[in-house]
Amino acid sequence: MNDTITTMHAHRSIRQYGPDPIPREHIEIAVRAGQSAATSSAVQAYTAIHVTDPDKLSELAELAGPQEKVEKCGAFFVVCADTRRHRLMCERANLPYESTLERFLVGVIDATLFAQNMTLALESMGYGTCYIGGLRNDLERVDRILDLPEGIYPLYGLCAGTKAQHPIARPRLPIESILHTNGYPSDEDTMNAVGSYDETYAQYLEDRGAPRASWSEAMVSKLSRRSREELADYFTRKGASLT
Amino acid sequence: MNDTITTMHAHRSIRQYGPDPIPREHIEIAVRAGQSAATSSAVQAYTAIHVTDPDKLSELAELAGPQEKVEKCGAFFVVCADTRRHRLMCERANLPYESTLERFLVGVIDATLFAQNMTLALESMGYGTCYIGGLRNDLERVDRILDLPEGIYPLYGLCAGTKAQHPIARPRLPIESILHTNGYPSDEDTMNAVGSYDETYAQYLEDRGAPRASWSEAMVSKLSRRSREELADYFTRKGASLT
Repeated sequence: MNDTITTMHAHRSIRQYGPDPIPREHIEIAVRAGQSAATSSAVQAYTAIHVTDPDKLSELAELAGPQEKVEKCGAFFVVCADTRRHRLMCERANLPYESTLERFLVGVIDATLFAQNMTLALESMGYGTCYIGGLRNDLERVDRILDLPEGIYPLYGLCAGTKAQHPIARPRLPIESILHTNGYPSDEDTMNAVGSYDETYAQYLEDRGAPRASWSEAMVSKLSRRSREELADYFTRKGASLT
Repeated sequence: MNDTITTMHAHRSIRQYGPDPIPREHIEIAVRAGQSAATSSAVQAYTAIHVTDPDKLSELAELAGPQEKVEKCGAFFVVCADTRRHRLMCERANLPYESTLERFLVGVIDATLFAQNMTLALESMGYGTCYIGGLRNDLERVDRILDLPEGIYPLYGLCAGTKAQHPIARPRLPIESILHTNGYPSDEDTMNAVGSYDETYAQYLEDRGAPRASWSEAMVSKLSRRSREELADYFTRKGASLT
């Protein structure tokens, strides 16, 4: 087990941070590490917006939950898929930028390869991190707060900072649920693996002092409800094509 | 610069591999490292299919380009967003699985956080890697080759293996194109940063012995053409909702 893999296993989402901001130098190291991840045909379809304005942070913290950590962490970023540069270059060349689902997907994938390297780089420097999917509660408002132009698609936030908590690790599905050979397992095998994990997960919640629930119960409660139904309209208005 | 960040900067997409397969033990280490990445509300919406069957590898290599490395690397994986488990758990509970764009996006993001950790773990063990977006040339065929059930969305491939080449690093956009504060820069600033990078990129191609082209030229040539227009139909047939 080398240092890189040890750093990965040490990952915990950190929800309480000390008051110190992250020095700009460390932020730049993390962003450059993010940029060194693979990118589809060199498109580099991503951008990170470091939010430092207290009013903007306060609004983002509110719409994301509220989640106090958005304004209380050492540095908060909004990670976006970025097709703005591509559009401007096409415009300059008098050619259309052809917006397709493929290009939207490449943006989401590219941005997330970038973000995971950036996150792991921050963790390797000793910082805690937490992705903030809660920004998708109201992307229209995120857009207004940051005054985003066409072609920029905000995806999620990223909190980072000095850790003020040391939570236990949340257990993951058994590897036989994730790694398959030449195809996907039968429904019976899939659900058998879930069954063994359900108990592990319930025990984890109990150990953490949270109400006991199996993974299935937690997932069904979440996934049987509709959520964030305005995403497609928002991304389409920003120039994405999803069909 | 610690080992983790050094490993990130050492990334090159590797397109030629030695003949040795990757030992199962190393594959499992990489998959577990992938699983230790963050996951949205513990949904773990991803799956990796290790393709070892020579006929399947040959078909995948063909549809992806052709790209010989798909069958000649040490291990080839198809990375998928996985909502199958979620659907089966909802079915067992007699509740609907509510398919939304949010859930599709979470799958793409979760799978990519997983894949980037897995990739970096492989690289930290000395292997070369290359993502294969070319699978999206024909996802219907990928689907048939792997006999994928509803709710599994193949996204891209991942080659890994011993390196049989040592390419120079492809330069990235200047950090001022990627890291912004409180908002997105003006179009003028955006295009000025592109201008300086265009020259760097053309020089890189020349140093690599490829035809000289600026980044803008390469991007415009690619992005002004439509591509992979059947993706939305395919994902929708597999149970995704994109609207």
